[in-house]
Amino acid sequence: MKDLIAALPPGRVIVDPDVVGTYTRDRTYLQPGQAVGAVLAESREDVVTTLRWATEHRVPVVPRGAGTGLAGAATATDGCLVLALHRMTAITELSPDDEIAVVQPGVITADLDRAARVHGLMYAPDPSSYEISTIGGNLATNAGGLRCVKYGVTRDSTLGLEVVLADGRVLNTGRRTMKGVTGYDLTSLFVGSEGTLGVITEATVRLRRAPAEPPATVAAEFGSLRDAAAAVAAIIAAGCQPAMLELIDRNTLQAIDDWKHIGLEPGTRAMLIAQSDAADSATATARMAKLCDENGASFTAVSSTPQESAELVGIRRLAYDAKERLGACLVEDVCVPRSALPDMISAVEAAGDRHGVLICTVAHAGDGNVHPVFIFEHGLAEPPEHVWAAADEVFRAALALGGTLTGEHGVGMLKRRWLALEAGPVVADLHQGIKAVFDPLNILNPGKAI
Amino acid sequence: MKDLIAALPPGRVIVDPDVVGTYTRDRTYLQPGQAVGAVLAESREDVVTTLRWATEHRVPVVPRGAGTGLAGAATATDGCLVLALHRMTAITELSPDDEIAVVQPGVITADLDRAARVHGLMYAPDPSSYEISTIGGNLATNAGGLRCVKYGVTRDSTLGLEVVLADGRVLNTGRRTMKGVTGYDLTSLFVGSEGTLGVITEATVRLRRAPAEPPATVAAEFGSLRDAAAAVAAIIAAGCQPAMLELIDRNTLQAIDDWKHIGLEPGTRAMLIAQSDAADSATATARMAKLCDENGASFTAVSSTPQESAELVGIRRLAYDAKERLGACLVEDVCVPRSALPDMISAVEAAGDRHGVLICTVAHAGDGNVHPVFIFEHGLAEPPEHVWAAADEVFRAALALGGTLTGEHGVGMLKRRWLALEAGPVVADLHQGIKAVFDPLNILNPGKAI
Repeated sequence: MKDLIAALPPGRVIVDPDVVGTYTRDRTYLQPGQAVGAVLAESREDVVTTLRWATEHRVPVVPRGAGTGLAGAATATDGCLVLALHRMTAITELSPDDEIAVVQPGVITADLDRAARVHGLMYAPDPSSYEISTIGGNLATNAGGLRCVKYGVTRDSTLGLEVVLADGRVLNTGRRTMKGVTGYDLTSLFVGSEGTLGVITEATVRLRRAPAEPPATVAAEFGSLRDAAAAVAAIIAAGCQPAMLELIDRNTLQAIDDWKHIGLEPGTRAMLIAQSDAADSATATARMAKLCDENGASFTAVSSTPQESAELVGIRRLAYDAKERLGACLVEDVCVPRSALPDMISAVEAAGDRHGVLICTVAHAGDGNVHPVFIFEHGLAEPPEHVWAAADEVFRAALALGGTLTGEHGVGMLKRRWLALEAGPVVADLHQGIKAVFDPLNILNPGKAI
Repeated sequence: MKDLIAALPPGRVIVDPDVVGTYTRDRTYLQPGQAVGAVLAESREDVVTTLRWATEHRVPVVPRGAGTGLAGAATATDGCLVLALHRMTAITELSPDDEIAVVQPGVITADLDRAARVHGLMYAPDPSSYEISTIGGNLATNAGGLRCVKYGVTRDSTLGLEVVLADGRVLNTGRRTMKGVTGYDLTSLFVGSEGTLGVITEATVRLRRAPAEPPATVAAEFGSLRDAAAAVAAIIAAGCQPAMLELIDRNTLQAIDDWKHIGLEPGTRAMLIAQSDAADSATATARMAKLCDENGASFTAVSSTPQESAELVGIRRLAYDAKERLGACLVEDVCVPRSALPDMISAVEAAGDRHGVLICTVAHAGDGNVHPVFIFEHGLAEPPEHVWAAADEVFRAALALGGTLTGEHGVGMLKRRWLALEAGPVVADLHQGIKAVFDPLNILNPGKAI
């Protein structure tokens, strides 16, 4: 560590175990290992120096942004060095003409969006954590969000990257242009690789025109989850192009109501929140409300002001915090073809009932992306066996329905034991082969993602 | 070859040199090498058998779709076996509810689009060759097209792949869902890899809601290319969201007029063709026409019927055939940040003037993707030196403007000698490392793409 401290500018390296410990967790229940230290990088050169040192001394490196991950990719392991990027917060360039921005990895996602809005643009990807998560973390996990039903996930907004490899070499991938096919798509390979192939020190991202008018929102209550899922299918089939289409189950609504007293009706089993940001958002929202009514909604409310619209979406954004009040959370992230949404939700309910686990579910319903949150007792090192048994059932149901283990959170440490069920041995071989090309000493976030 | 003929069903293998020769060219001027034979695959099993044989005997394999490529990726090399996929034409599944299709690689792109339209859906990617090119070829090159200014390129519509590796192992990448982050993004890695990493035998692609109303189109004529480029910038900045935004230069218009007598005015130096497929396409088109007027258009015509709209786009679709009447074509494909479009076009004109080369240019202007076509004498084995000198200048100008060598055609054989200018040595190392993981014997399309 002395070499590393000497090689970096003053103040970059932390070795006090208590302070280091604050950089070792993400937002999962996972208990981190003991890191040997943490580097708070402020520049590409800091990252290069750190990785050269790690290569020389064969020290595993766990990169991290803000630590808001939900799968354990940023969880420290014993003997690792934490490489924190949250101090690299420069928006280096923002070009309204080219509709691109060049950013450092520590930029808070919502800050980039706000900077773009000044020019009539937006940065579309908006994971629920977008006010506290970083672009670098979003890139590492290929984060999704609420708006991705219309605008795509983080990878869809990423044009090019500057990356430091395990041995300290720097490369640039991709481009500043809207299109480009020179060589293999290394940009897409790094996005979602959870810090196992390289450390991203700069990203060129695509911005989009922000909608001219504020969005409008409809909230609809249903007596059954299946009715709500049918309304989702009807909204998509009608071509309404929602900019958000969120489903909240009874358990989650109850948790929110217990906390914030939103006036939940006894018969409500599900709420759908749909937003349009189109030029005719009022018409689109009215149309979505009608489709909810036709599919059995017991109550619909359409926003008549931007503030009301924000309040309706605000109910959805309370979900995670409301659940954390109930206990420790195992947050899952299965994604199924849209037509399988009702079956997936039934499977989640059945798994909860069978194993006696409280599961609170929200879904990015337009994408078929379902987040069942398994609640268990605070203070346990691991979720109890019956929680894992219920989660295992949910994973297997998702795969049987043609779905995937993780729509937007990543594999991290939490889902590695199920990976083979989805990916198969040939894919596993290729994963290992690619990993060895980029990181032959296996020092970048070992034990994660693949 | 006897072993291969015996291992495959009857009629799959061609060895007659004249017939084999018909499967050895793409749409470039490049002279193919002498192939030892061609397999016309009809199933995944045919591909597996072929690649196992090729691995055993160390025979290079050149995969091909319809041979409409513009960079030489499908050009046969001496001693290779051609593996043609154009007989695998099944649309295996088309799910309106999930908005996906599962297709074999030989499906003609426009056929898939038409099959989707029956259900109110569309397959968005539409390379100019979409009536004759295959999905497999589009995947191999990550083809773009006219509509990608609004809907993205082939990779943006690709969810998952079935691929046969060089050694005959079969893998499935990706998913059937809208989102998914399980493991590295192998799907994006195969898309655009020009047959060097594996042979795609099935693709799961994303469909989109087709616009409810027929599109409307505006054509505008300008006295200078810079004025036309300024109109492009104004249309994008105003948030008009064109579904096509195509620029045609004087030389191309002249070639079209000489052939089809479209009534070209003497002072016209450029034409812009912009289409809207939005619900308010008439309003959007009128707005784009006004922006053209404000930026110096000498004449604008707005379609008032779907047929007129198709006729205006038809002018653009004549461009390639009109140019082929002038001589042999070196078709280039640089892409620059949108704001650099006027400078890029000036650089093309300057290169043509300096080296005495006739260059006909069209551009997917909304993407900054410029296709300068260098015309030279029919019958030459290679473009003459002064044509390469002009092309070299164009490539270097694109890179200097922050652009890329190829927006949508791929590197193939044509652009390999410029690759290092854009990608650099670290990227080249990683390309070779990845190639070795997927194809350790280097039998898949050697000498192409990387």
